[in-house]
Amino acid sequence: MLRHLLSANDSKIILLVMDGLGGIRTPGFPETALDAARTPNLDALAAGGLCGRSLPVARGITPGSGPAHFALFGYDPLAPENDAGRGVVEVTGTGYDLLPGDIAIRGNFATIDGDGILADRRAGRIPHKEGERICARLGKKIKEIDGVKIIVMPVREYRFGVVLRGEGLSPDVEETDPQVTGKKPLSPVAMNAGAERTASIIARFIEMAGAILADEEKANTILMRGISSRPAIEPFSDRYGLSAAAVAAYPLYRGVARLCGMALVDTGFAVKEEFDTASEIFRRGEHDFIFIHIKKTDSYGEDGDLEGKKGVIEEVDAHLPILLGLEPDVLIVTGDHSTPCAMKSHSWHPVPFVLKSEFCGIDGAAAFSEAECDRGALGIFPAVDIMTLALANSGRLKKHGA
Amino acid sequence: MLRHLLSANDSKIILLVMDGLGGIRTPGFPETALDAARTPNLDALAAGGLCGRSLPVARGITPGSGPAHFALFGYDPLAPENDAGRGVVEVTGTGYDLLPGDIAIRGNFATIDGDGILADRRAGRIPHKEGERICARLGKKIKEIDGVKIIVMPVREYRFGVVLRGEGLSPDVEETDPQVTGKKPLSPVAMNAGAERTASIIARFIEMAGAILADEEKANTILMRGISSRPAIEPFSDRYGLSAAAVAAYPLYRGVARLCGMALVDTGFAVKEEFDTASEIFRRGEHDFIFIHIKKTDSYGEDGDLEGKKGVIEEVDAHLPILLGLEPDVLIVTGDHSTPCAMKSHSWHPVPFVLKSEFCGIDGAAAFSEAECDRGALGIFPAVDIMTLALANSGRLKKHGA
Repeated sequence: MLRHLLSANDSKIILLVMDGLGGIRTPGFPETALDAARTPNLDALAAGGLCGRSLPVARGITPGSGPAHFALFGYDPLAPENDAGRGVVEVTGTGYDLLPGDIAIRGNFATIDGDGILADRRAGRIPHKEGERICARLGKKIKEIDGVKIIVMPVREYRFGVVLRGEGLSPDVEETDPQVTGKKPLSPVAMNAGAERTASIIARFIEMAGAILADEEKANTILMRGISSRPAIEPFSDRYGLSAAAVAAYPLYRGVARLCGMALVDTGFAVKEEFDTASEIFRRGEHDFIFIHIKKTDSYGEDGDLEGKKGVIEEVDAHLPILLGLEPDVLIVTGDHSTPCAMKSHSWHPVPFVLKSEFCGIDGAAAFSEAECDRGALGIFPAVDIMTLALANSGRLKKHGA
Repeated sequence: MLRHLLSANDSKIILLVMDGLGGIRTPGFPETALDAARTPNLDALAAGGLCGRSLPVARGITPGSGPAHFALFGYDPLAPENDAGRGVVEVTGTGYDLLPGDIAIRGNFATIDGDGILADRRAGRIPHKEGERICARLGKKIKEIDGVKIIVMPVREYRFGVVLRGEGLSPDVEETDPQVTGKKPLSPVAMNAGAERTASIIARFIEMAGAILADEEKANTILMRGISSRPAIEPFSDRYGLSAAAVAAYPLYRGVARLCGMALVDTGFAVKEEFDTASEIFRRGEHDFIFIHIKKTDSYGEDGDLEGKKGVIEEVDAHLPILLGLEPDVLIVTGDHSTPCAMKSHSWHPVPFVLKSEFCGIDGAAAFSEAECDRGALGIFPAVDIMTLALANSGRLKKHGA
């Protein structure tokens, strides 16, 4: 719908996402983390900007991180064509670009005992360096099975990715992770006749990996999960006419951003490091759109740690002048979903949102909090509309009709 | 969309519907009935819960009671498959379960003079006992016409139901009620060739009934309305994984609830009787979801009787502790549509709504009224989303996507 309205210009858009930002007030938690945090910069942004509450998927639906980010980027989170398997997301997140027809798998290194019984599904959470070393061992010995090219890559710690590249492969193969210890890993079972060859290649890969890793103390087997193929997702450049970059440290978010055609930028995990990275690429001027992802708000929310979540929000606020100083034409601050400390989990509650631009309009929200965003002029609105608002506020959309 | 997210647990949901609850303020009616009513319990619920205004069908659309209740139960009120004819609803509301292929008709007993001219479309509103007696007379003499089984059942007072059960029947037959007195009843005309046999069976039934009732003083003929067949409506148990029961005294609401697969519970008409009935079945623990329907708010609204409507709301508030004492995991209080005293009719205005659960979140609404619900965090939202919110707040929905 947008394509014929696009009008290129030199404007710059920054989308800052604090993962799991939203919270709820309950008798046990009379303040949300946003309420509790001292956030003079975010409050000023809200007071001078356009506020509301974004609805990631639909009322009452709790999104996972993948669908929540697809929605932020303007892709219908319920459409099957925007449904990316975990294997695809994690492999893509390493910066590896899948080709049509490739099969991507998310692997866990794991520990089995002498009888083949699963003792640890994460191989004692071996450090990243160990994961890299073991991936290299596999990659050196396994390069091809039955004419299909095999690529093994480290992701983080005990997690790795596998790509199968060849003709006639299918993602319709069951995972081998039994989800509990004390059982043998499952076999990679084909869900239909067309997937039988792929299943047998994966079975052979597991067998070969087991033989190679037999002398490892912890990572002596592998589990295969999220077996998937790359969905056809229209890239940002075609969809919005934007050259986009992602400043995100965690694989899943890097993966979704890359699937939408964003350039991946290397960055540290700390808020200031991410903002400095964003600042650097902003000043280079190669990109029209910069997505910045802050993970720890969600992690503390999942722990029910209000002080921790509040601390991350205050850290973001303290360093916000780095982004404000860039004077982007549009600055959006929001979350991908809510992770209330009261619930210690993702939730369905709409997410605080603020957009600042020359023509955003000033509304009734006086600060950046759930309650003030409820007073914002946007009301409760679908997160898939955020990109349209970003384009409009950057002057990149023409009038619809005469 | 919801099915794959459902996750069973032992939570209990109560949906309390005050028919026609919503009102509007006008110069002539500076307060709505909810404004005028003293409602400490509902106010406390709103202050500690999640509020908003539900939109039964769409902005500006005034719903009938049937579509308004389908929306409350999460069924698209505009979808043809959720369109139940009045015959089907009233027959089902008596507790009679229609089979696929059955034709259900809503009948009125009526009075004609010696020339066959309609003198009273409701046979002087004969009492329910009289209706039962006359139905029994018909049922005894008419059991089958042209191989089609005929079932006659009393509904309320001058209203009764007829079911035609047999092969090849069609609901495409015109009503026989001319809607005014001083005319002869209409003939049951087939709308297409496939309905000609059904039309002739109905004509024969009217003829036979006229002969049998010729000696009745008031109910000496019948009018046939709402000729319809049972729509394929997915039951609550399949759709939501909920075992549901309906505490409703009036046939239409019982009918819609039954069509959605709810168990019908016998109850008195008074608010306290209905709450006591709900309490009893709640404590029995057989049902996860209890729908309670209060009719009189709508009746007083239709009369433009603000004092009357206010009185019913205060009665609900006074007895609300019966429901609060059950400690349901989710308690929702709302209406099916608005019936402003200022308009003396159903209207399109959104309906006050409150939901209370452990994780509903506290919002800016401080009391239960139209104006305070406008300050709630839900905003104006589609009534079809109420069931999703109920399931989310009862912990019955898994996360969408990883």
